[in-house]
Amino acid sequence: MSRFPIGVFDSGVGGLTVVRALRAAVPHRDIVYLGDTARVPYGTKSPRTVERYALACQRFLLAREVDLVLVACNTASANALAALSAASPVPVIGAVVPGANAALAASPSGHIGVIGTLATVASGAYEAAIIAAAPPAMKASIRVSQLGCPLLVPLAEEGWTDGDIAERICRRYLEELATLDSAIDTLVLGCTHYPLLAPVLTATARTVWQRDIAVVDSAAAMATCARHAIAPADATAGPGKLSCFVTDASRLAELAPRFLGEPLDAPALVDL
Amino acid sequence: MSRFPIGVFDSGVGGLTVVRALRAAVPHRDIVYLGDTARVPYGTKSPRTVERYALACQRFLLAREVDLVLVACNTASANALAALSAASPVPVIGAVVPGANAALAASPSGHIGVIGTLATVASGAYEAAIIAAAPPAMKASIRVSQLGCPLLVPLAEEGWTDGDIAERICRRYLEELATLDSAIDTLVLGCTHYPLLAPVLTATARTVWQRDIAVVDSAAAMATCARHAIAPADATAGPGKLSCFVTDASRLAELAPRFLGEPLDAPALVDL
Repeated sequence: MSRFPIGVFDSGVGGLTVVRALRAAVPHRDIVYLGDTARVPYGTKSPRTVERYALACQRFLLAREVDLVLVACNTASANALAALSAASPVPVIGAVVPGANAALAASPSGHIGVIGTLATVASGAYEAAIIAAAPPAMKASIRVSQLGCPLLVPLAEEGWTDGDIAERICRRYLEELATLDSAIDTLVLGCTHYPLLAPVLTATARTVWQRDIAVVDSAAAMATCARHAIAPADATAGPGKLSCFVTDASRLAELAPRFLGEPLDAPALVDL
Repeated sequence: MSRFPIGVFDSGVGGLTVVRALRAAVPHRDIVYLGDTARVPYGTKSPRTVERYALACQRFLLAREVDLVLVACNTASANALAALSAASPVPVIGAVVPGANAALAASPSGHIGVIGTLATVASGAYEAAIIAAAPPAMKASIRVSQLGCPLLVPLAEEGWTDGDIAERICRRYLEELATLDSAIDTLVLGCTHYPLLAPVLTATARTVWQRDIAVVDSAAAMATCARHAIAPADATAGPGKLSCFVTDASRLAELAPRFLGEPLDAPALVDL
């Protein structure tokens, strides 16, 4: 049994959706969370800069003796996972491969849509991971269509997660995605902020494609993956502790409950 | 006559609206522009972090022998102008004081609305500057109401500057501002991205307050202020040159023409 915490980092507050899923999956493990709120968002930055920032985040977690690193940020997973894995003595789990596997399991047709930040989409990481993980007989019929949706992060942070404006923004993006592939049956939420918009995205997707669309949340897939990757904690020790760090005193404390689904003690400020 | 360039910095691409106004105001002066695209946006960061980043930007410009620094970023102007001025041997002009003066000149009633980033609004800098600049007899009747509008920056960057979604988002924000003061006659665009949304904000403000609202663009006010602050350039030398630097290879080249109103040579990448 492990006495070490699990480390989770994200560019900001969004990764708390991963922590939420992780606390449900491994309730007795301690978790150290780092939100790089001074440099959020990663999603509009170049691969080189994203990699540099992600490595700094991981160094902070490794110094806290974590025995597993979860890269909650899809942009960092898509652009820096190889560098992160190479630099870590403990396993590193990104968002993309678990999300890709979950999408394949959900999609009968292999026509999969991915929405995320501009940097995640530009990396092509989801498409590569989905094709790599597909059974050989299915590879030829896989079709992955992607769209960057820059307004969805501020929309989720503003808390405008239902109603008219959220519906219209989601419809505009999904209609654009439908012009790329009208046969999509599965939609991957390729950004940790998007689970907050899952209800409106699910409803809008049904309208746009005129059928039920499976909506895949990478956060849940990552938590499942983590549960299989680690030694169990001592269940008699009670619920695991969540320690939270940020690189800038931001709105995290205000926004956290919305993403985490529970109150959060004031995060500690660190300089990377 | 000065042979030195004017330095302009912003957290990202938005400051090019100031460069556009500046090139119209002082067409023969060279301009050095720095967009801190690796750390954009400043608007959600703490005052301490904004100040640290802004000082680094200014050092870069001073090393290029500028004889005037324009802080195009409203967030940096609101949170770091005193520190920037103290650290500079040449004059520093921020966005807030010129914007405040322009608002006072435009507002018969003294009921002024300010929209900007969360950090600009939290600083209270516009309210302080407007009250400080008001004539003594008018001070008591000044009323400044502010609102942070986080969706407007990504909306401008996405290019969704007219149509249904832009109208609804602007209306939602301005209706919230109207609950703070139903007698506003002047609206300050307290962020360099907002001039792109000026038409929809002007139309929406008229609907919300049911009268014409004067919309004040800080970028234009800064350019006028700069023209009065500097020695003229040699007009016979032809049009001034614009040199552009960024801290991350971002969408700046793609977005620039929308903000600058003219094509832009590929910016050079620098590490601060």
